Amino acid sequence: MDEDYVARCAALALLLEVSASPKPGNVDRHHDFADTKYEHFLASAVAAYPVFRAAAQEGAKWAEEGRKCHIGKLIRAAVEESMRWQSGGNTHFGSFMLLIPLAAAAGASEGISRLKANACEIMQRTTVEDAIELYKAFPKARVRVRSVEQLDVLDPRSQDEIRRRGLTLYDILRISADYDAISRELTGGFELTFKYAEVIREGTRQAGLNAAIVRAYLEMLSTEPDTFVATKFGEAAAVEVSKRARGVLARGCNDEELRRFDEELLRAKINPGATADITAAAIFVALLGGLRV
Amino acid sequence: MDEDYVARCAALALLLEVSASPKPGNVDRHHDFADTKYEHFLASAVAAYPVFRAAAQEGAKWAEEGRKCHIGKLIRAAVEESMRWQSGGNTHFGSFMLLIPLAAAAGASEGISRLKANACEIMQRTTVEDAIELYKAFPKARVRVRSVEQLDVLDPRSQDEIRRRGLTLYDILRISADYDAISRELTGGFELTFKYAEVIREGTRQAGLNAAIVRAYLEMLSTEPDTFVATKFGEAAAVEVSKRARGVLARGCNDEELRRFDEELLRAKINPGATADITAAAIFVALLGGLRV
Repeated sequence: MDEDYVARCAALALLLEVSASPKPGNVDRHHDFADTKYEHFLASAVAAYPVFRAAAQEGAKWAEEGRKCHIGKLIRAAVEESMRWQSGGNTHFGSFMLLIPLAAAAGASEGISRLKANACEIMQRTTVEDAIELYKAFPKARVRVRSVEQLDVLDPRSQDEIRRRGLTLYDILRISADYDAISRELTGGFELTFKYAEVIREGTRQAGLNAAIVRAYLEMLSTEPDTFVATKFGEAAAVEVSKRARGVLARGCNDEELRRFDEELLRAKINPGATADITAAAIFVALLGGLRV
Repeated sequence: MDEDYVARCAALALLLEVSASPKPGNVDRHHDFADTKYEHFLASAVAAYPVFRAAAQEGAKWAEEGRKCHIGKLIRAAVEESMRWQSGGNTHFGSFMLLIPLAAAAGASEGISRLKANACEIMQRTTVEDAIELYKAFPKARVRVRSVEQLDVLDPRSQDEIRRRGLTLYDILRISADYDAISRELTGGFELTFKYAEVIREGTRQAGLNAAIVRAYLEMLSTEPDTFVATKFGEAAAVEVSKRARGVLARGCNDEELRRFDEELLRAKINPGATADITAAAIFVALLGGLRV
């Protein structure tokens, strides 16, 4: 797919995700967090555009000439551009981790039929250098993640250790996949991303795009306890949020209850960030497949 | 300025303009029109990114090698991309008319000190071909404008007439400047655009970006009767809206009154579109000058 086509789908996916409302617990068009505001997400989405384009270009060269995709370096570049264009801190780290390999895969693909297979192969072929680049990106975004096997994400010595042990980006994400949904997507075939792309496509036909995105987010939340919430508040809290989401869905997902759920989570500062990131990736895949607003 | 820097400022300006709320009478993050929704504006802003980049590239070549900027063709391309990526109809016609020459001027400029002069010169050098390209764009966007001197914007024969009379884009806009604020900006030195860029920069320091944009929009509305409203509802209606905006400002521009003004205009379907377009151009200039969210 054309590089500007891919970059536009990626930036628009981030815009549509953050705009979808009410999206319980997260920033949306109707509410900000204290330090991170809706506008910071708008700026970050646009800031990353040239990096999405570069990812698609690298993907095309990988498919045509077998050249390497620098996934780690591209993720770091997206994070750096995001931080350069807005002052709200970490807006899109998890989303960039998903969207960059997907953008590379889209650049390598004619239509979307090979998109998933290409994304998986691109991730499997990541190198030690990609892992080190990701580790360089963490401190810039001041992102909250667990350390993988004593490899403290904020300690520069981890980079030497990664090199010594010869761990590729794929290797590291396979370890963190145990407790992190983004890593699970990246090493497990992007299962939720592609499943919810279909949910959003179908939901848009029935109820319009905003409702379809909110619904997909809520369904994912109800069946997959959010791993960002688990890291921040413990597994039990994440499971409780899922249960609560199931209740809202079971009672017909009406506006008033959605809004109450949203307010509850906001008050407790429980933001299901991993679910939002995978929702953005799902919107990206749906747009690549031709979904339009 | 770098072409991707320019394109990001342009796309982000459109996003910030449509998101600013409450922006009496227009689509914002909190309300849609019946057919044109907030999401249509998001998609349109991103859709035009490659055209903004192309405009900046043409501007750079104009400055370095004296090559022509194809302003008319670029405006038509932006309109076409916008319509291809969303189904809400005309979202950004007036904004594109302002942002394209400004993007070309930014590509031709090192900093922003020569931006205004370059934008003026680029407009003065437009050709008959640019005028014809603009006339080709009108029917695509189904945009509501008056005909200039019997040159019906929806009649393809107008193109032959423009050629016969040797009218450049600048010539035509000089005529419509009498009753159209966008044309006035494009032929009169972008006075409001640069004035309100400063208002937004200053206002952001004092009250934050969203409040600064709303305030700039309202101030412009209060002193410059909106020409889009005048075309649609008559001069008296436009003057009345200005008077109403002056009252809101005089009483301290409080949230409740702003919202009431917004509801009044929405109910009457009075949308000050020209004011919104010039506000977007002002945000673009402020971003080019270094304003960040």
